[in-house]
Amino acid sequence: MKANAMSDLAPPILAAEWLNTPEPLMLEGLRGRVVVIECFQMLCPGCVTHGLPQAQRIAQTFRSSDVVVLGLHCVFEHHAAMTPVSLRAFLHEYRIRFPVAVDMAGENGPLPQTMAAYALEGTPTLILIDREGRLRARHFGQVADLVLGAEIMVLIQESSVVG
Amino acid sequence: MKANAMSDLAPPILAAEWLNTPEPLMLEGLRGRVVVIECFQMLCPGCVTHGLPQAQRIAQTFRSSDVVVLGLHCVFEHHAAMTPVSLRAFLHEYRIRFPVAVDMAGENGPLPQTMAAYALEGTPTLILIDREGRLRARHFGQVADLVLGAEIMVLIQESSVVG
Amino acid sequence: MKANAMSDLAPPILAAEWLNTPEPLMLEGLRGRVVVIECFQMLCPGCVTHGLPQAQRIAQTFRSSDVVVLGLHCVFEHHAAMTPVSLRAFLHEYRIRFPVAVDMAGENGPLPQTMAAYALEGTPTLILIDREGRLRARHFGQVADLVLGAEIMVLIQESSVVG
Amino acid sequence: MKANAMSDLAPPILAAEWLNTPEPLMLEGLRGRVVVIECFQMLCPGCVTHGLPQAQRIAQTFRSSDVVVLGLHCVFEHHAAMTPVSLRAFLHEYRIRFPVAVDMAGENGPLPQTMAAYALEGTPTLILIDREGRLRARHFGQVADLVLGAEIMVLIQESSVVG
Repeated sequence: MKANAMSDLAPPILAAEWLNTPEPLMLEGLRGRVVVIECFQMLCPGCVTHGLPQAQRIAQTFRSSDVVVLGLHCVFEHHAAMTPVSLRAFLHEYRIRFPVAVDMAGENGPLPQTMAAYALEGTPTLILIDREGRLRARHFGQVADLVLGAEIMVLIQESSVVG
Repeated sequence: MKANAMSDLAPPILAAEWLNTPEPLMLEGLRGRVVVIECFQMLCPGCVTHGLPQAQRIAQTFRSSDVVVLGLHCVFEHHAAMTPVSLRAFLHEYRIRFPVAVDMAGENGPLPQTMAAYALEGTPTLILIDREGRLRARHFGQVADLVLGAEIMVLIQESSVVG
Repeated sequence: MKANAMSDLAPPILAAEWLNTPEPLMLEGLRGRVVVIECFQMLCPGCVTHGLPQAQRIAQTFRSSDVVVLGLHCVFEHHAAMTPVSLRAFLHEYRIRFPVAVDMAGENGPLPQTMAAYALEGTPTLILIDREGRLRARHFGQVADLVLGAEIMVLIQESSVVG
Repeated sequence: MKANAMSDLAPPILAAEWLNTPEPLMLEGLRGRVVVIECFQMLCPGCVTHGLPQAQRIAQTFRSSDVVVLGLHCVFEHHAAMTPVSLRAFLHEYRIRFPVAVDMAGENGPLPQTMAAYALEGTPTLILIDREGRLRARHFGQVADLVLGAEIMVLIQESSVVG
């Protein structure tokens, strides 16, 4: 990743399908709010144990007018095992209510397209996008709630020319 | 369940498929050993959090000459979401190494056949079968390790005319 | 507590003794930094399980030039059981390294003086003081790391005319 | 420890004081029952986190006619910090209800007398004594509930010529 890539606009979410939302979402439409994207695979133990519960806590802690939490189901292994029909049951059983995008399959190789555009190293990865739509953080693996609460608040407190 | 049903012979495992074992297993072939069956669904949070890790601890704690641990994937909801191909990836990702039977689909209704024969109330359920092949305990939900360790040891200590 | 008490200057820490620091600390001397005070009793289970580990995480997460973490041992029950000699061993065994003030015994009744001045309801209580020395939050019981990380960052980001 | 020391009679408990019991207990008086002794220090983090909660679970799981749970407060460091008055408050706050013996101070050095007689390596240590009064296990550090449940059941199932 380039030195100042983290202040570039976040790449768009390329979704084959959206769940838990009546209509597709676009990052442009969320300008003015901080966006948290939990990138996960439904059969990734670290996502189930750590990443997704943390995303649920974020959604419950911050005002939805300040912070939007999204899931990105970015399957890069066991593709046949983690289909949308399985994901739908998973979200129901784990009571995950925030909108989840199914990352668009890649055209060359196992990596789906949004995952590739964000240069993700694996799952879980938690992404932070600021009110202006810029990519500001990308945490692969575990990040502590204390750190994350602080990072999100920095972004909340930035004024937005958009919002 | 009848008053003395718990001392009857355990019903056979009716499996559509076996995973983690080179060939199908039959309870008759396990006579002389205590058998622990963890009945689960791969998308059941209580199974993932509690039941399956407990079954793994049992498999690591007792000698395999005394105790055999099996899984029974008894899907009674979200059937299309928990297919054998998904289960296979799940077992791989969660590092579950003991043999797992895929319960045979029921002919009338959502309950699979072994689940119906054991009159299970849901998942997770942990079943204990003694050295003689008799059904001795059936724990639905959470059971404490301390209780389970004691119960398994009672069965280990029973002499077997078979073994 | 009065309606706007939370923006008043935080009362001074009245300490009979300080541990983990070569010399006594005064809040005035910490102006320019955010101050976190973990109010605890060494035999309070919620303090041992939740409050003190959280204070340790705060000390490890934020820069000491931004955030100072202090303990306040405010014994209001079992006074003979929680003496400074016991506290010293406790801090050693639990590897608590931040400075700890022993709250000055009250002159009328069981409540020690700083605890009374801050109108604390019990232990654990976590107090936040801003860079200007004003009392900004007082959490009795458990507060989530995500919330606390966000609250501390708000205070960190406030500019200080003092610092 | 000698090769067959574990089948010797358990040494007597030399107590300076007993708490949580109207009168002192002697191992002889408990013959016929399995005795579990949780050896701890009130300021030992591993005892507070692991050992004592486990002893409480044992007391809640097994019938008191089969298993007696005792605590042994064997202070070998920070003696002035862990006096009986502090211990009493500790037991109250942590809701430990089983009888606790205060190990008799050693005459030469920091080790108290029962701790020395049992050749304990440190705290927490969990001791198992069979219905005949013989020392059967001595677990220093953490022992899993599953293992412990099984070990206790072995001792419960031994017939007793005494009981």
